Order: sequence, then structure tokens, then C-alpha cells
Amino acid sequence: MPAASLETAADPEELPEAGPFDEVAREAVYRAIESRRDVRNEFLPTPIADVVLRRLLAAAHAAPSVGLSQPWSFILVREPETKRRVAEIFGRRNAEAATMFEGERADAYRRLKLEGIETAPLNICVVCDRARGGPVVLGRTHQRDVDLYSTVCAVQNFWLAARAEGIGVGWVSIFEPDDLKPVFGLPHHVAVVAYLCVGHVDRLHGRPELEARRWGARAPLADVVSDERWGAGSLLFER
Amino acid sequence: MPAASLETAADPEELPEAGPFDEVAREAVYRAIESRRDVRNEFLPTPIADVVLRRLLAAAHAAPSVGLSQPWSFILVREPETKRRVAEIFGRRNAEAATMFEGERADAYRRLKLEGIETAPLNICVVCDRARGGPVVLGRTHQRDVDLYSTVCAVQNFWLAARAEGIGVGWVSIFEPDDLKPVFGLPHHVAVVAYLCVGHVDRLHGRPELEARRWGARAPLADVVSDERWGAGSLLFER
Repeated sequence: MPAASLETAADPEELPEAGPFDEVAREAVYRAIESRRDVRNEFLPTPIADVVLRRLLAAAHAAPSVGLSQPWSFILVREPETKRRVAEIFGRRNAEAATMFEGERADAYRRLKLEGIETAPLNICVVCDRARGGPVVLGRTHQRDVDLYSTVCAVQNFWLAARAEGIGVGWVSIFEPDDLKPVFGLPHHVAVVAYLCVGHVDRLHGRPELEARRWGARAPLADVVSDERWGAGSLLFER
Repeated sequence: MPAASLETAADPEELPEAGPFDEVAREAVYRAIESRRDVRNEFLPTPIADVVLRRLLAAAHAAPSVGLSQPWSFILVREPETKRRVAEIFGRRNAEAATMFEGERADAYRRLKLEGIETAPLNICVVCDRARGGPVVLGRTHQRDVDLYSTVCAVQNFWLAARAEGIGVGWVSIFEPDDLKPVFGLPHHVAVVAYLCVGHVDRLHGRPELEARRWGARAPLADVVSDERWGAGSLLFER
């Protein structure tokens, strides 16, 4: 195919029709988005079938990435000794975290269970190879951190596909950035973006668990949308 | 409800059943993930109906957020003069970017169209309020940037819901981090995470556009998965 036809992108094989989904399919996408939860307590011990795990990882790998750099890698963690080491590091950091809250808030914090590292049958350490794609990556020339953002998009794809498979995911972030590097043998150019606990669930909270446990509340959508400028509010909620 | 029942999370109203989706619904979720594209050229001028835009923003707002901080805000941009200013800044940064590539690669870079700022009927500046949730946010005690990651999860939710609605999204990242702050009146504690071009499409590339245009290629899934340690490869692809 001559380069010109690629540049005008007129080849119908390259640009198949892509209209809206039918209502049933559209609702399924919204249902995955709305019923997805951050899971800590509800993991079942059932192992995840290889075929299902391959589908979830393929969904993650289909995420958008800056300059098509696909900077993510997924380390599958099943060894109890490794999970134990990670849980131990978490425990130390979480004790530090508890001291940062005051009074009743500190007590409430200590009562929360914030991870399922050892109860989830699978953990995944999601990392970003910051050298992938070479020294100059298209779209990453002026903001160095968009490779980390691409990796987060992969996490969210994984999470939503998992919801559709009846698999819960919990993201554990209470680590110092370099805490997990020695555990997984990460070279200096590879950053941990997310540590995920993954397993089948048959129940999920109907609303965010931190809301159910009265730690916080969801904000009205209208509070986070504005027209044209920061802080202007939006007519979208007055029409 | 007494606090104890919240802590054991045994209330069935709080924990409704949440198994796998049926096959049709599951396939819809995977279809959104797999057929989502970064759009630059295919925007139609049709405005997006308010009811649809509210659904897309609600999907974004349903994203996971660290400590339920919901740090995102969405600035809806429709004024041609504002788009023109943003396009002008992009043009300057993109010219700088082109000089970072060498030889044929620089020529190829200059031939790519990397944004649809002025052709998309809607632009959205997605920002993260780094002060939201107060000085100590649950889950953000040891990694300061997880609020930015929450905001990226919101972007990916928006993108996938948009795919199901027949709406294309393009993420423009070729700006210096502070370039857009004066355009939208952002205070110093609010960071731009993504600048999105949004509009109806009736065709999308069948594979990533940068692959179709021979800028790069998708990596095999097996290359980005490993067992237990960095760089170990995974038995998941040998079973």
C-alpha cells in the first residue's frame, strides 16, 4: 500500500464502521463502570483460570499508550512467601499512615481493612518501563510522566474487564515508591505504578466501600464539571 | 445501622450479588476495550447531546479514586477562540517535538496529524485538584501522585463509555505541564492531566493509528507478562 493512502487514511479496511453500540451492549459497558469496586474483603480462594487471566491481560494490553510505547509490564504473584513479604511492607507503611490522622479519624483509619494481599489468590505488580520506546517517545516530549498515565489506563482496562468476569480487584497504594523494587528485582528504570489484589468475588459493595464505612461521600457530578474555565460551574446541569 | 455491621460488611444490602456478566454483556465490555482508538482525524461536526455527555461524565466520575478523594474536574471547552489558543500552543510545542527526532523519523513525525482540537466539537481539559481531600488522604500517604492516577482512571472510563456511544476521543499530550494553566485560569494546586478532543465518529481505525501509519507496532502480550519476578517470562503462555 503506498504511503499516501495511509496518510489520507481513506482505506475502508483501515477504517471500518464504528458507530454506537446497541442498547444492551452500551448498558453492559456502563454496568461494568458503575458496579466496579475496590475490593479488600470479598476475595474467594478459587484460582483464576488461565484462559480468563489471558483475556484480562489482553484487555490491559489494549490500553492507549503514548506513542504506542506500551510501557507496562505485569508481574503475576502467586507465591505465598512473596505475598507475605509484600504484606509485611504494607503493614509497616500502614502503621506509619495511621499516625498521620488525628483523633477519631486515626481510630477509624485503624479499623479499615485496606488490602487483600494474602487472601487474594493472585497479586499483580503493574510496572512501567520508563526506558521503553527509547529516549524520545512521540507524545512524551514535553510531559515525562504520560508513560505512567498509559500504565494506569491499562490498570483500569484490566479492572473493568475483571468486573465483567466476576473478578474483583483491589489497588494497594500504601507503599513508598521504591519499597517493592527489591521484591521483584526491578531495575532502576522500571517504576511500580499499581499493586493489585485479584480474585473471584460473588458479592461486591453496592457503593464505594469507603462511603459504606462512612469514611467519605461521593460528590455530586455537577461539582466536578465546569464550562470553559476552572470553577465556573456548567450549564449542562441546568438544562 | 451500628458501626459493627459496617465493619464486618455482612449487610446484604451493602453487598449485593456481583457475579460474572452473561456472555453478551461480557463481550460488549471487551469490544469497547478492544475497539477504542485515539482519534485525531475522524471527528464529525455533530454536537454531542447533553444527555449523552452527562452519561459520559458520570462514567468518568465513577472511577476509583484514592481515599475516595475524587480529585478530578472536567472543563468543557466549546468556544472557538479557546480552542484556537490551545491549538496554537500545541502547534508551537509540536514543532519543538519534531526537532527531537532524527532523519526519516523526523519527516515521518511531521506528516502525522496528532490532534483534532479545532475539528472536534468538544474539548475537555481534565484536571486534578491536588489539594482535594485535605492534607492527608487515605492511600496517598506514601505516594503523592496516586491522585493523578485516579484522574487517569476517570479518563479511561470516559473513553470506554464514549466508544459505546459512538463517540471518539483523542488525548493530546504535547504540552508543557503548565502551558494550559493560564488558558483555563487554573490555580497552582490544580494540574492538567489530559486534554481530550471529543466528537461523534462513524469510522475508527481497525488497529492503533500509529501502527496503521507504520510509526510503531504492537508488542506480543507474552512480552509484557512475567511470573513472580521482573523479566522472568510467564508460563501462562506455555500452557
